[in-house]
Amino acid sequence: MPAPLVLVTSLEPAEDVAWRDALARAMPEEAIATSADPEALARAEIAIVANPPPGVLARMPRLLWVHSLWAGVDRLLLDGTLPPVPVVRLVDPALARAMAEAVAAAALHLHRDLHLYADQQRRSDWRPHDTRPAHARTVTLLGLGEMGRAAALLLRAIGFTVQGWSRTGGAVDGIRVFSGADGLARALAGTDILVNLLPLTPETRGLLNRDAFARLPRGAGVVNFGRGAHLAEDDLIEALDAGALGHAILDVFETEPLPPGHRLWSHPGITILPHIAAPTSRASAAGIVAEAVRSFRGTGRIPTGVDRGRGY
Amino acid sequence: MPAPLVLVTSLEPAEDVAWRDALARAMPEEAIATSADPEALARAEIAIVANPPPGVLARMPRLLWVHSLWAGVDRLLLDGTLPPVPVVRLVDPALARAMAEAVAAAALHLHRDLHLYADQQRRSDWRPHDTRPAHARTVTLLGLGEMGRAAALLLRAIGFTVQGWSRTGGAVDGIRVFSGADGLARALAGTDILVNLLPLTPETRGLLNRDAFARLPRGAGVVNFGRGAHLAEDDLIEALDAGALGHAILDVFETEPLPPGHRLWSHPGITILPHIAAPTSRASAAGIVAEAVRSFRGTGRIPTGVDRGRGY
Repeated sequence: MPAPLVLVTSLEPAEDVAWRDALARAMPEEAIATSADPEALARAEIAIVANPPPGVLARMPRLLWVHSLWAGVDRLLLDGTLPPVPVVRLVDPALARAMAEAVAAAALHLHRDLHLYADQQRRSDWRPHDTRPAHARTVTLLGLGEMGRAAALLLRAIGFTVQGWSRTGGAVDGIRVFSGADGLARALAGTDILVNLLPLTPETRGLLNRDAFARLPRGAGVVNFGRGAHLAEDDLIEALDAGALGHAILDVFETEPLPPGHRLWSHPGITILPHIAAPTSRASAAGIVAEAVRSFRGTGRIPTGVDRGRGY
Repeated sequence: MPAPLVLVTSLEPAEDVAWRDALARAMPEEAIATSADPEALARAEIAIVANPPPGVLARMPRLLWVHSLWAGVDRLLLDGTLPPVPVVRLVDPALARAMAEAVAAAALHLHRDLHLYADQQRRSDWRPHDTRPAHARTVTLLGLGEMGRAAALLLRAIGFTVQGWSRTGGAVDGIRVFSGADGLARALAGTDILVNLLPLTPETRGLLNRDAFARLPRGAGVVNFGRGAHLAEDDLIEALDAGALGHAILDVFETEPLPPGHRLWSHPGITILPHIAAPTSRASAAGIVAEAVRSFRGTGRIPTGVDRGRGY
């Protein structure tokens, strides 16, 4: 009998049970223990993690690899006690589709001035604004991984002019791709709606800042679906208050839940979403982890993890 | 030299001038007069109308046909003095694309609970709601003319399950089409988001009423992008207040602009838009009218107008 898998989380108890159930359904052939079980920690070769408490993985002497239940592993990699084993992040096509839908919803919201009409409704103010067709509006995606590519294709299907910026600058069908600092400056200059989907790394932290906003055309929209730490909050508020930016839609924050009374909640130029752009589907994620575990059991090969230097 | 065209409107003076300029640019070979010119009224064979004051067209003895600058001609056909000449309504692909974008924006807004998050933001309430993929959400389009078909294709590209209801029940690629009263009842029973794009006719007036809402699944969304008179306002408010409907997005009203203080402005279950779903593009509309005029000048054939019995 193979050693058990260990599920390591610091989630609410109900969340934790739901994950354990979903994983058990996806791989009934496996024994799944939790990090509360010292014997399992001693024997397990695989840890499945969701927001793991720092230090727990260091207490697993036989650990060979780790599968994250999230797509973003930035917080996990910051744990200085993390053993030097491969860390696999969740790459889920269902997640990419959900993110593409959310990007489409946000881009259309800004494109058709729904934020202005919501504000006008509060004042019974009937005032149509001029519009233009989607092809006359350029949406720039920062990040062209699986989510960025899915979003790019959907935005094109809607009719937007789409361009992207990525570390590698690798081609995506039918869209103009930029890379590097110069490329970013050029991409921003032609952007009506900027959508951040980047992973959080030392290079991308704070990328949405005063310099970036200053390069956008006046009145541009900004959508942050990446991580809270991508955004320099003071710079955003300054740019909105000065009218340099038109509106921002934020789904991610340095502290989540965003605390009551936080100034972002009440800023008229900001739409707040409670981290819902690409919610993980438990069933889908559990199925993907089960595939990886089965492949390992069958072949003995440890899957390839993220590039820790790169951060994703 | 051919008789002048007459532009007949009861718009604001600035609007009127803008239309006259756009038409003059689109057909510089034509003389364009206004209905303030008695000689032009006496001689003109073609009237180009936007919201014409009742009775004016009856004062054009040589009138052969009328081109509307709007897609909807319901108000025009209600004028009892309208001479029995063909009335051509605007059929503009740019208008259909704009409507499709607006339908996509509204459907995604409801699909991803953006109305709930807007409400929560006012209370600093961080509370994610469960979501599902677009394919698990059925959008039903009432009306499958040029606008309805464009909307259907875009909604399918986004991933929604799409069905439609139309008078003829004519097929549209890849969507289930219903017709008749029985068909409407069946379509509504499987609808998550109902979108009205019908022309206003005696048959469709008041179609969005208590009976229709009662057939929708609990919590369904309603989008009215047709005409204000399609909607029984009291029935909508009753259904929203009872929780039978989830949310409504309204772009058209019996009286426009919607008067300040009107109860629709402040209903928490209603998003108000100031008739912006498919704004006419003056340049595009003027080009289409110019094509029709040139064809008439070249061939002498009077274009086919709307079916006055049917109403569109």
